[in-house]
Amino acid sequence: MSDIHNNGKIFGAIGKVRIETDSLGEVAVPVDAHWGAQTQRSLANFAIGTETMPAPLVKALGIQKQSAARANMRLGELNAKVGEAIIKAATEVIDGTLASQFPLSVWQTGSGTQSNMNANEVIASRANEILTGNLGGKEPVHPNDHCNMGQSSNDTFPTAMHIAAASETVEQLIPALGHLHGALDAKAKAFADIVKIGRTHLQDATPLTLGQEFSGYAKQVEYGVARLENALPRVLELAQGGTAVGTGINSTVGFAEEFAAQVADTTGHAFTTAPNKFEALAAHDALVELSGALNSVAVSCLKIANDIRLLGSGPRSGLGEIALPANEPGSSIMPGKVNPTQCEALTMVCAQVMGNNTTVSVAGSHGHLELNVFKPVMINAVLQSIRLLTDATRSFTDNCVEGITANTDRIDKLMNESLMLVTALNPHIGYDNAAKIAKKAHADGTTLKEAALELDLLTEEQFAAWVIPSEMIKPRG
Amino acid sequence: MSDIHNNGKIFGAIGKVRIETDSLGEVAVPVDAHWGAQTQRSLANFAIGTETMPAPLVKALGIQKQSAARANMRLGELNAKVGEAIIKAATEVIDGTLASQFPLSVWQTGSGTQSNMNANEVIASRANEILTGNLGGKEPVHPNDHCNMGQSSNDTFPTAMHIAAASETVEQLIPALGHLHGALDAKAKAFADIVKIGRTHLQDATPLTLGQEFSGYAKQVEYGVARLENALPRVLELAQGGTAVGTGINSTVGFAEEFAAQVADTTGHAFTTAPNKFEALAAHDALVELSGALNSVAVSCLKIANDIRLLGSGPRSGLGEIALPANEPGSSIMPGKVNPTQCEALTMVCAQVMGNNTTVSVAGSHGHLELNVFKPVMINAVLQSIRLLTDATRSFTDNCVEGITANTDRIDKLMNESLMLVTALNPHIGYDNAAKIAKKAHADGTTLKEAALELDLLTEEQFAAWVIPSEMIKPRG
Amino acid sequence: MSDIHNNGKIFGAIGKVRIETDSLGEVAVPVDAHWGAQTQRSLANFAIGTETMPAPLVKALGIQKQSAARANMRLGELNAKVGEAIIKAATEVIDGTLASQFPLSVWQTGSGTQSNMNANEVIASRANEILTGNLGGKEPVHPNDHCNMGQSSNDTFPTAMHIAAASETVEQLIPALGHLHGALDAKAKAFADIVKIGRTHLQDATPLTLGQEFSGYAKQVEYGVARLENALPRVLELAQGGTAVGTGINSTVGFAEEFAAQVADTTGHAFTTAPNKFEALAAHDALVELSGALNSVAVSCLKIANDIRLLGSGPRSGLGEIALPANEPGSSIMPGKVNPTQCEALTMVCAQVMGNNTTVSVAGSHGHLELNVFKPVMINAVLQSIRLLTDATRSFTDNCVEGITANTDRIDKLMNESLMLVTALNPHIGYDNAAKIAKKAHADGTTLKEAALELDLLTEEQFAAWVIPSEMIKPRG
Amino acid sequence: MSDIHNNGKIFGAIGKVRIETDSLGEVAVPVDAHWGAQTQRSLANFAIGTETMPAPLVKALGIQKQSAARANMRLGELNAKVGEAIIKAATEVIDGTLASQFPLSVWQTGSGTQSNMNANEVIASRANEILTGNLGGKEPVHPNDHCNMGQSSNDTFPTAMHIAAASETVEQLIPALGHLHGALDAKAKAFADIVKIGRTHLQDATPLTLGQEFSGYAKQVEYGVARLENALPRVLELAQGGTAVGTGINSTVGFAEEFAAQVADTTGHAFTTAPNKFEALAAHDALVELSGALNSVAVSCLKIANDIRLLGSGPRSGLGEIALPANEPGSSIMPGKVNPTQCEALTMVCAQVMGNNTTVSVAGSHGHLELNVFKPVMINAVLQSIRLLTDATRSFTDNCVEGITANTDRIDKLMNESLMLVTALNPHIGYDNAAKIAKKAHADGTTLKEAALELDLLTEEQFAAWVIPSEMIKPRG
Repeated sequence: MSDIHNNGKIFGAIGKVRIETDSLGEVAVPVDAHWGAQTQRSLANFAIGTETMPAPLVKALGIQKQSAARANMRLGELNAKVGEAIIKAATEVIDGTLASQFPLSVWQTGSGTQSNMNANEVIASRANEILTGNLGGKEPVHPNDHCNMGQSSNDTFPTAMHIAAASETVEQLIPALGHLHGALDAKAKAFADIVKIGRTHLQDATPLTLGQEFSGYAKQVEYGVARLENALPRVLELAQGGTAVGTGINSTVGFAEEFAAQVADTTGHAFTTAPNKFEALAAHDALVELSGALNSVAVSCLKIANDIRLLGSGPRSGLGEIALPANEPGSSIMPGKVNPTQCEALTMVCAQVMGNNTTVSVAGSHGHLELNVFKPVMINAVLQSIRLLTDATRSFTDNCVEGITANTDRIDKLMNESLMLVTALNPHIGYDNAAKIAKKAHADGTTLKEAALELDLLTEEQFAAWVIPSEMIKPRG
Repeated sequence: MSDIHNNGKIFGAIGKVRIETDSLGEVAVPVDAHWGAQTQRSLANFAIGTETMPAPLVKALGIQKQSAARANMRLGELNAKVGEAIIKAATEVIDGTLASQFPLSVWQTGSGTQSNMNANEVIASRANEILTGNLGGKEPVHPNDHCNMGQSSNDTFPTAMHIAAASETVEQLIPALGHLHGALDAKAKAFADIVKIGRTHLQDATPLTLGQEFSGYAKQVEYGVARLENALPRVLELAQGGTAVGTGINSTVGFAEEFAAQVADTTGHAFTTAPNKFEALAAHDALVELSGALNSVAVSCLKIANDIRLLGSGPRSGLGEIALPANEPGSSIMPGKVNPTQCEALTMVCAQVMGNNTTVSVAGSHGHLELNVFKPVMINAVLQSIRLLTDATRSFTDNCVEGITANTDRIDKLMNESLMLVTALNPHIGYDNAAKIAKKAHADGTTLKEAALELDLLTEEQFAAWVIPSEMIKPRG
Repeated sequence: MSDIHNNGKIFGAIGKVRIETDSLGEVAVPVDAHWGAQTQRSLANFAIGTETMPAPLVKALGIQKQSAARANMRLGELNAKVGEAIIKAATEVIDGTLASQFPLSVWQTGSGTQSNMNANEVIASRANEILTGNLGGKEPVHPNDHCNMGQSSNDTFPTAMHIAAASETVEQLIPALGHLHGALDAKAKAFADIVKIGRTHLQDATPLTLGQEFSGYAKQVEYGVARLENALPRVLELAQGGTAVGTGINSTVGFAEEFAAQVADTTGHAFTTAPNKFEALAAHDALVELSGALNSVAVSCLKIANDIRLLGSGPRSGLGEIALPANEPGSSIMPGKVNPTQCEALTMVCAQVMGNNTTVSVAGSHGHLELNVFKPVMINAVLQSIRLLTDATRSFTDNCVEGITANTDRIDKLMNESLMLVTALNPHIGYDNAAKIAKKAHADGTTLKEAALELDLLTEEQFAAWVIPSEMIKPRG
Repeated sequence: MSDIHNNGKIFGAIGKVRIETDSLGEVAVPVDAHWGAQTQRSLANFAIGTETMPAPLVKALGIQKQSAARANMRLGELNAKVGEAIIKAATEVIDGTLASQFPLSVWQTGSGTQSNMNANEVIASRANEILTGNLGGKEPVHPNDHCNMGQSSNDTFPTAMHIAAASETVEQLIPALGHLHGALDAKAKAFADIVKIGRTHLQDATPLTLGQEFSGYAKQVEYGVARLENALPRVLELAQGGTAVGTGINSTVGFAEEFAAQVADTTGHAFTTAPNKFEALAAHDALVELSGALNSVAVSCLKIANDIRLLGSGPRSGLGEIALPANEPGSSIMPGKVNPTQCEALTMVCAQVMGNNTTVSVAGSHGHLELNVFKPVMINAVLQSIRLLTDATRSFTDNCVEGITANTDRIDKLMNESLMLVTALNPHIGYDNAAKIAKKAHADGTTLKEAALELDLLTEEQFAAWVIPSEMIKPRG
């Protein structure tokens, strides 16, 4: 790509420019942009889609650059003036002040090289501005020599991937799932005494309590958190120090360990340096594993949300055992028609997360030798899955689960009409007589009690004494 | 692998042996097996899983070998005596007589080379037996020189893949879907006048007929057939004639075309020679495409079977609008509890087909240069999907759909209790009054009619004249 | 959700407000926003993710509302003044002028109801502004009564889904693939005489031309277009006219057909009204089918881009047969190290598209009865796949394929060193002697010619006359 | 289904019969079959596919029935005579003696009910035979009352699923991966001093050792084992004791715990009773999680096997850095052409496992209320994935990895020709001069040394002293 080609594509849109350079030559960049030549080239070369690098990844690049500067200062590789300016500029990446300076597409070089250079260029520019009042350029702070010191895109970018994925999981998703778990668990307790008909194969079955039903959902969510936590140890391992191919060439002995300690200190999470850097650059199995855990959580949530809309179906012609809060007009003329919209949003999110798992798995399988070059798509998919599950489970908890109420009249009616309760009569009148009652009730469309009395097999008092649904929800004493 | 190694692995199990040879040396094979050295080596080297090459693929290899012999005879490359013996032996592969002679695992060489050699060895052995009374060996019929004449595993195996996939689709799956379509369409007609409550978001909605509901299912299946038919043109293209890398080296001008004509003649399907043999060896996009169509059919069937079990849920505490045939004991004491087992078998099949689509897509994406070496897994997955959808839709049709009956009492009850019918009153008493009725009925748990009469907004006669569900199932005249 | 709750969430951010209403009550919206109460509620209730409704879907809603207004005017249902104002406002949705007025998340109600209402509210507001100078409100143009006349979200949103998916496929992706096909085909022709070593199983094989290799890629792309075109007929079918449950209640006879004609006229694509509206609302198999075609295209592109980076690997220690254009600095000190970044961007896109196919399939499988409520996730994934494949194949074509050159010296060297050419000697000196030559050359690490001469099996002239790679790239005459 | 219908379907094939009964009536079964009426019905009703219940699941049903009998005896529910006969019969299920008595399809009732009844019928029959000399019937051992005592298919089948999945993972897959890890680790050590060119983006990069490269593979496999082990705790939880809907109705207090203890004792694995039986019946997230771990292992193996075939590509025109063992004829005339067939088998297996993960996830997401009815497809896919990965990694280890040798001449040649070594000159002659050398070597096609000497930038001795690849494979001291 010649610069003219670049100019042709970009100039019209960018107004006043300044000239920055890289090893291929000069490139015009917007005069007030912190980014430099390589970022600008990437904008021209990868005009693909609308997805830019996700915010948590940009933040992680800030943490990565800051921690590298700190480690290099400790090791005596970087002088204090330059180092402090880098640290200050990186802080502005971390806190989002420089968010607009990261315009690159997810669909770029598969090593994330251009986003690493984007970070180097922006931090160098801002550091230069801090030190000299002028942004851009390579003096006194150089994007490569200082910001990328002892680093390579090949270890920097996967390091940022792991920082972002682990931090978002711990800080965002796990608390959101904890919040959902709390709400489900509270319902399990609140509904502990509401005995209702069970359903297997979608067919009427023996009773359980509504609380027991919700306890299953709560357990699924609790285990989802455990699954995420299980995946973390390997996500907490950082590739930094592997440099170009995993050997650590051009890095300094001790840098990898010092760097990881800095990241752990900044984030508060137990990041460590990866024991094998070849694995850490060439494979991203840790993200495949994390995506698998996210997929499990999605499968759980899909089941839960599906059940809840099924239990809330109606108001008249469905199961109607629970009522969901009405958050928006469902039907202007149809009172009681409350569309389970939060269930719908959550289940759609689950479908996306399940698909992202395929994306991450395919991408993870296609690495070649010393480098997997599907890094941006993998971290984008993983962070999208984390974000969506976080937001959707929170929305679902706040706007749906917490407001669920039991339609106890309906629940009682369905249970008392049910033929499944006949099983309670077996010990008293024998299997054959019990079956006779059920068959008659089914044929006549009556209740069991009506059929039993009509058949003269027991008295009303006996029926009341023997058919006690609340005794049917646990093992025999 | 030395022969001793081979012997060590195999001898104990195979009893009396004879010695066959290939370019790596001698190999002991069971004395009465038609297969030879390369098949035997494959058994030792690929002791993986329990899946052997699917029957339709073995049959297709028979068709392929037979058609190649015929084409070679036509082109004067193969003498009549040898050619006729090959044709006869191949017939026994086609009709299944030699099924036990194809013991190889799906999980072998990715080009299917060993199954091609299995076919060559078995057909040569059987042809030799026909001609000389003795099986095995390479005289007068040679596995390579004659059975594989002008062929390579690299064009032979994908040719067999396409023959099998297209034939099974046309002969098995499309008729089975036609059968299902017929049954659904018959129900759509039989249920054309049964007006019932509609449900959107699983919530009560305006009415439709049960026949209309089934007409949607029938349409899905009809379109499924169209999707399969759309994929066929490229599956009907045969790689044969491309030989090792697609150039046709060692083949004869005209062979590819003559071969395809022979296959078309034998199978009755419109097979043609692939216009570009490089694509035909290096990519299996046609199977990815066919798998995509199978995936669509699975998605349709999952929706249909899910709906049917939902409509049949109950008997008392579900929707209960239809009754499914009872094929096996659901609950010995619970009359009316009919588990929707056919729906369950079909939906499980659908999940497998959806997963197979991922398998086929991943496998298709991993080809290298002149050859995709995921051929066996791709054809195994595609043929499994075809077989399962064929069998499961037939079973579902015969054992479930055809026996579905409408519970008209229940349907009427649900519809008449529904509040959604209130919309029919809008033109007569205005939106606000109609809403008043619905709100009162919802609050009191009564029917619309009861609420309307209590509110004195209309008479019983007016209600009967205005609220006619069967008028609510089509656009305004 | 009470309005106060809404206010609490939203007020701080939105500055000056006006009050709009829906059936749940009053809602404050930003004073200069065209959207109304239901859109504002959705913003509060679905604060999930960063993905808003994709631009082509918003445009399609504009086309849908405009076409509905035209059809209603034709049928005498809508007066000219209101109708013309709606048409004019819808034009501004179509051309993107009102893009900022569509802020809703993909992760909302699964029927897309809120985006339909967003369109109704915005178009009514803008139409009111056109007619009265004041935006917002419901007079003289009412969001429901006029903009949504004879419509339901349940038929409107899937209609917009199909308009967007078909239009983007035809207008964006198919031309982009045509562009890629043209470039690959041009390379196939330009490289038609460059004979090179073939590779199967990644192992050296018989030769082919570089042009033949590229012809396979071109064919894959050509077939990809055919696959997309095959899926279109069912995507061109529109659900409009089905209203709430597919029956067309509250719509007018003839509306569906007139509407489809209007859409066809506006877009220039052959849209028709769906013959079965129950299928069109309850299932989105047409999008599953289209996604399957997109998945096939992705699998093809992954193979092609993978091959191209493999052929371009090096510069010294890889295959090195082709050179890719250098678009950005690969290594500042390493001339000739050209990272295949366009291949990487494209293959990452392919992984996303393959995952989206899982998303769409899962979503398609989870419909219930009269309505599939995974509409937004399905159309979002399909449109993302279309957009990404469009942009990435264009970028790949322009920035990579068109600039590919053949390293003929390297190609010749590899081919001449190859042992595979020995097969050309079979007819002249017999198989056994040919094998002897190959074995000696392999053992000694020499060329075939050197080995042959040393073994005294032929003369230098004979070798030159018999071993002619360009004769090895086609069937025997 | 009437018995006549059953007879019509089955009689022809089964020869002499006896009559067994279930609650639907009489059914003819083969006279010497241990199975009874319900198994026979299932054969007729589910003639779908060729996949029967996998052997480890049948074995697990044996363990389950045996452990239930023991627990019931301990609790005083089952008398010793009947109990001991059941235990003995179950032993024959466990050891495979009765394998032929489990003919049922995977594609049956989604709760696995019929396979549970198959186990009950077979064990009762065999126990009766042990006690009376006559097989079949219900006396003295009854399939339901005794073999299924205190159990339901709904807790029995998922219990067997977990027993099978955990046992196979621990006993089969983890050891096989340990075996692979050992072989890769041994190669990492054996190749520790072989310095070679690294490759990123498939482009030449700085060197590493072949041992380092293999250490990355070994690490991937080591982590794969950790992933599997992480998933086990939840797979080790057993549903038994939940009976029909999770409440434990008809079971005895203490049974669940005693049962789990028996299973742990029999298998030697740390099985426990699931703390929440509602989750254990209604969701199979534990298998989704395990499948996710299997998917991660597949992704790792796909990368490893792909790399190994890439490194072994050639013999002349590929990378050719390693040699793989020749297990079967690759090309009869082409010495050195060793097709990487073990890599191919393994990568095909990986594609299947990745697809199975989609299958399991879709199936897991589609549960309804108290029961997920995709049990058989889930356990079949999980067990297939375990079996295939076990066998394929063992085959790959034994037939490929262990025999890999390094082509050190080729490795040295590629490395010494490489231009990447120029980076070693930076500290000595400066970046600009080093780049000059690289550019000249690239332009002229010479080595770095030749270019350096020609440019007169250093002496031969200096080159030898400064360019030492083995110094480039670690961080600076």
